[in-house]
Amino acid sequence: MLPFARVSIIGLGLIGSSLARAIRAKMPTVRITGTDADPGVRERVRELGLLDDVADSPGAAVVDADLVVLAVPLGAFAAVGAEIAPELAAGAVVSDVGSAKQIVVDSLGPLLPETIHLIPAHPVAGTERSGPDAGFPTLFEGRWCIITPPPGADETALARLSEFWSRLGSKVDLMEPRHHDLVLAVTSHIPHLIAYSIVGTAADLEGVTRGEVIKYSAGGFRDFTRIAASDPTMWRDVFLTNKDAVLEVLGRVSEDLAVLQRAIRWGEGDALFQRFASSRDIRRAIIDAGQDTADPDFGRQH
Amino acid sequence: MLPFARVSIIGLGLIGSSLARAIRAKMPTVRITGTDADPGVRERVRELGLLDDVADSPGAAVVDADLVVLAVPLGAFAAVGAEIAPELAAGAVVSDVGSAKQIVVDSLGPLLPETIHLIPAHPVAGTERSGPDAGFPTLFEGRWCIITPPPGADETALARLSEFWSRLGSKVDLMEPRHHDLVLAVTSHIPHLIAYSIVGTAADLEGVTRGEVIKYSAGGFRDFTRIAASDPTMWRDVFLTNKDAVLEVLGRVSEDLAVLQRAIRWGEGDALFQRFASSRDIRRAIIDAGQDTADPDFGRQH
Repeated sequence: MLPFARVSIIGLGLIGSSLARAIRAKMPTVRITGTDADPGVRERVRELGLLDDVADSPGAAVVDADLVVLAVPLGAFAAVGAEIAPELAAGAVVSDVGSAKQIVVDSLGPLLPETIHLIPAHPVAGTERSGPDAGFPTLFEGRWCIITPPPGADETALARLSEFWSRLGSKVDLMEPRHHDLVLAVTSHIPHLIAYSIVGTAADLEGVTRGEVIKYSAGGFRDFTRIAASDPTMWRDVFLTNKDAVLEVLGRVSEDLAVLQRAIRWGEGDALFQRFASSRDIRRAIIDAGQDTADPDFGRQH
Repeated sequence: MLPFARVSIIGLGLIGSSLARAIRAKMPTVRITGTDADPGVRERVRELGLLDDVADSPGAAVVDADLVVLAVPLGAFAAVGAEIAPELAAGAVVSDVGSAKQIVVDSLGPLLPETIHLIPAHPVAGTERSGPDAGFPTLFEGRWCIITPPPGADETALARLSEFWSRLGSKVDLMEPRHHDLVLAVTSHIPHLIAYSIVGTAADLEGVTRGEVIKYSAGGFRDFTRIAASDPTMWRDVFLTNKDAVLEVLGRVSEDLAVLQRAIRWGEGDALFQRFASSRDIRRAIIDAGQDTADPDFGRQH
């Protein structure tokens, strides 16, 4: 039996449109509705035929749905929550795909009627592209989906959402919302922030032209630009909504960078070597865990 | 006519062994000799049949060569230079593949006889792998090779070295050694340093286990671990030999990061958005310049 029969997706960008495609591929009998704040995106999704029905407002999109998934930037959650709350069917599960989770509990929870089950989730998957044309049905396959039920969450609703993501090919994990936010600050938010920062630094450095930076980017810089090409609205909201964890980890990053800076200034080769050598073990573990491939140069064409 | 007939490669790791393979592929009549400080590497290169002759010392490897390429870590240049100097054939060109260039002029220049032409070079290509088994013949294809002739360098020697790298498929560019060091600090050295630093921070953070970092690395962190998996000895020497440019750029990086940190602390969403949005232009320019592909997620398999 399918965990849900009528799924509504609010926000039809890279993640929302991939979700629609994945549901079509894995659970073809599910009726999919949804909407997007951008009329152009709604139009495009209609052209692509990704949904059974593209509504013109969140309220209209969620009527009758037994699962509603918010795939909009975190900053839009409160407004969307207020719009859908009166239209939700009793017993519906409301979930999301946001990159910070405590904020979802805090901002969305108080808006929803008591008969609704809020079970936030975060599929750890994505690319640097945005918009409905960038989505693809296998985006979540083999990737983790972290579900972060608030205290006292309904067990049946949680089980159904877990089953839903498993059927889309994800590996499901459960976590406390706050712990999720710290783990993701380290593994995702801080890498993105640093990448954005460095790309900006390089673009504005006196003595080196932007053309030179672009020309010689294969030496390492281009890897930073890829993650710095992600959707700016989404990332703005991630940093505003996961502020505490991000600032905590960023403090540690600055300290550790200062230690390396000092080692370079004083020519401490052994300290540098030790630090660099230990990074290899982490890389190896990531490949062993199936979270990356060992293809040289990311399998780029030479 | 071939630019060189007898090439000697000192150091047979990823770059040195790729160079041998590329010469075999593109200029099969060239006689290739070489050596490596590690007896196991010499043995392996003999098994792979990459060279015409694997010598047991740098001195023996360079006899009769009209081009000698140092592909050892920068910290070993002075010792190798002293060993090969008395054995070099008059008129030979000595070059290298090191990631910092002023240090090559400074450390190697004074050791070489007057009849020898020192023309340092830097092919901007590599992967996160090391050793002779990691090399492949197309590593330099379509990549830039920056040649940094010291003031007063011999024009014929320079032209021959340019022709050599062009035949291997590289796009050749000329640059002042010091300017090269600043450009590469931005495009390669600092990204590697930051990646090494962050991977270390993440591995030692209290509240988040190493297993969690590995498990959820697909959110961005794994991109950092790839470049942080490069050869630690090579990178130690890069930072020790390009200290001034690295520290200069690192100062700017820290400043810019502090600005983002403050914007997050004070909830300045517009400032964050502006910074993030401008990074996309750089990414687009890098793809337009052919220095990366636009494949989602680096073409990784899902």
